[in-house]
Amino acid sequence: MVVKPLKVALLGCGTVGSAVLRLIDEQADDLAARVGRPVEVAGIAVRRPAHHPDVPQHLLTTDAQALVSRDDVDLVVEVIGGIEPARTLILAAFEAGKSVVSANKALLADDGPALHAAAAKSGVDLYYEAAVAGAIPLLRPLRESLAGDQLRRVVGIVNGTTNYILSRMAETGAGFAEALAEATELGYAEADPTADVDGFDAAAKAAILASLAFHTPVSAADVYREGISAVSATDVARAAEIGCTVKLLAICERVENGNGDSVAVRVHPAMIPTTHPLASVGGAFNAVFVEAEAAGQLMFYGQGAGGEPTASAVLGDLVAVARNRLAGASGQGPTGYANLDVRPIADTPTRYHVSLDVADKPGVLATVAQEFARHEVSIATVRQDGHGDAATLVIVTHSAPDAALSATIAALRDMPAVRGVTSVLRVEGLS
Amino acid sequence: MVVKPLKVALLGCGTVGSAVLRLIDEQADDLAARVGRPVEVAGIAVRRPAHHPDVPQHLLTTDAQALVSRDDVDLVVEVIGGIEPARTLILAAFEAGKSVVSANKALLADDGPALHAAAAKSGVDLYYEAAVAGAIPLLRPLRESLAGDQLRRVVGIVNGTTNYILSRMAETGAGFAEALAEATELGYAEADPTADVDGFDAAAKAAILASLAFHTPVSAADVYREGISAVSATDVARAAEIGCTVKLLAICERVENGNGDSVAVRVHPAMIPTTHPLASVGGAFNAVFVEAEAAGQLMFYGQGAGGEPTASAVLGDLVAVARNRLAGASGQGPTGYANLDVRPIADTPTRYHVSLDVADKPGVLATVAQEFARHEVSIATVRQDGHGDAATLVIVTHSAPDAALSATIAALRDMPAVRGVTSVLRVEGLS
Repeated sequence: MVVKPLKVALLGCGTVGSAVLRLIDEQADDLAARVGRPVEVAGIAVRRPAHHPDVPQHLLTTDAQALVSRDDVDLVVEVIGGIEPARTLILAAFEAGKSVVSANKALLADDGPALHAAAAKSGVDLYYEAAVAGAIPLLRPLRESLAGDQLRRVVGIVNGTTNYILSRMAETGAGFAEALAEATELGYAEADPTADVDGFDAAAKAAILASLAFHTPVSAADVYREGISAVSATDVARAAEIGCTVKLLAICERVENGNGDSVAVRVHPAMIPTTHPLASVGGAFNAVFVEAEAAGQLMFYGQGAGGEPTASAVLGDLVAVARNRLAGASGQGPTGYANLDVRPIADTPTRYHVSLDVADKPGVLATVAQEFARHEVSIATVRQDGHGDAATLVIVTHSAPDAALSATIAALRDMPAVRGVTSVLRVEGLS
Repeated sequence: MVVKPLKVALLGCGTVGSAVLRLIDEQADDLAARVGRPVEVAGIAVRRPAHHPDVPQHLLTTDAQALVSRDDVDLVVEVIGGIEPARTLILAAFEAGKSVVSANKALLADDGPALHAAAAKSGVDLYYEAAVAGAIPLLRPLRESLAGDQLRRVVGIVNGTTNYILSRMAETGAGFAEALAEATELGYAEADPTADVDGFDAAAKAAILASLAFHTPVSAADVYREGISAVSATDVARAAEIGCTVKLLAICERVENGNGDSVAVRVHPAMIPTTHPLASVGGAFNAVFVEAEAAGQLMFYGQGAGGEPTASAVLGDLVAVARNRLAGASGQGPTGYANLDVRPIADTPTRYHVSLDVADKPGVLATVAQEFARHEVSIATVRQDGHGDAATLVIVTHSAPDAALSATIAALRDMPAVRGVTSVLRVEGLS
């Protein structure tokens, strides 16, 4: 009996695409056994075929639109990235009745609900495990394994470039610019590092994580975002002084209100205690810490980027959608039924670490403390170090609405007794 | 329109069962939204109804056999544990066309392939995420997320009781008996701690993990097993001296042979470097470290036991099998297609750490080193500390077949120059 293979259209053939291609070839026997049918590549859509001398030339095409709707194509893998033409091609694939595996965080964070609705309408799957934290199985656990639980928080280091830069700043005492230059030289940062360094990449992933975790549509535009370019060597040194380290965190929280819960989703650098499980996640690794009501604390750790790890996640999804296709079913998609409000950063409770240079004379501490009190911000710890006629004041606050904290900082900057606000960073994970 | 709820038969109502019951009740609205239909408990089978005054009395029954085949029951949750009557009841449920969610590691490790075959024959699901590492999403990631990858190793701390005991030994310098007594008093160890302390529990979990990871049927009987009762305060101190800590590890490996790969599955205490991600997993937590060809290194961390965490895993499976039932499909079961040989411990490459008390006189080190060489065991590091007419010799070997290592130890014990072998432990994770 001749078994008809499942045919895959591959859109894009860069680092991830070529790793996908290689794995499909190398693991052909295993994939066939796991899917229940051989899996074959039907075609590869690229912009410039001449740039891909190493792949089977007869598979290459520049007409992606025609490829996704070809009758002999069963499944589509989209690893082009970016919004267009990826969105149009994915919608065309759904229209033609084909399930899609994507690694496209920007598109999913921008337009997830519409894409899911289109997939559901056609009765096909849209899977994208590779879009967040590369090889780390994360979306499937959130969507399926924890489907019987109530998630409270998802806190992740989801961008390897910024984590590498911050790790190097902590190790060497270097400033941001110097660490970025090193990361660029070693290939950990792209020529234009904006998407990573300014937190856009992490914000897209945060939106996807929050959507799944809280059954609420969250888009990248809903995510409060601060990058790491303002993190100074002083910030990193100050963090070390209080037993902390600086990480760029993606934080998705369910916040209890008087009248119903809401969600808060934010990306910003923060000090976390060195004893926190996320603190030891170094270099280009990713990790995501999850707090659920019944499950308690969970952590997922692994490689967040790179061709092979990302391709591993793509192939895991490919096996799943292929099996669904053979079973004539579609998998468990995300649901937006909870539809919670997204709370702005101003109302989100956070904690601040503040370093001030002040005049070392009587009454200064009292004046500074009054300013915190005036904004109803409670102080957790204060440390004052005198040196000559000046002193350094290091203050860690309790939790307060972010707006109250930033208003306090603005007021401090205007105080005559305060010569300078030398470091301001949020603090997470302190009890 | 009245929507018919999905009805669940709950078998067993101990710590896990009552947590499942509570979560089904508390999260009724969320479960209904996630499944697509309300989920209700149809009946609870227990041995002694009088012991369960807190659950709805009209749901209690002592006739589990009748409950699992009742027409109004759609799904079965088995949290009785042990081999019988769990096995018979699960098979009866399959026979009656009902999918089963189980937390039963002993049964799955003992008889997994037969149970899966019975489920497949009836076209229903058998899910058991809760059987290994409690709340940590692990089996679904292994089975699905990594289905497009080739797993190399799975190394886990999967028993909280022994991890608590070993953590306390490291923290306090206590011996095994003392730490066990403390664990028993605090409720971390059962009155009869055999299943945990002698590694039976970890071996069952290792069998399940290896089966999924390597697409090969592995039963508990295939797992080499050593418990922690022989781990001494000296072993723990010696580990610290070389920058290591002692953990009970479940190790599932794919080992390359000349004529095809095989798998090696073992549970034993081992020294691991304190820098290894598993080393900092303390107390009753569990963690599993995975190495895959494309994905690289991954780690999963969380609570491995307890009513609520285990119930979270059970409910995640319940949502999945309920959705499958409504879709008229069954999920992705494990496959045994690779059917690799299970390699005995004697042939499995391991590394040893050995401490010897020897006479401090010329030629002893040479004699000892010769004994290693005679068994073709290569030495990685040696440290000799003289004290009076005696000396301590601490040797870490390179990797060698376990049989050669244990034969070396036996020979050393018989050497006149060796006054005593004071510590022997395997070493993992050293480069």
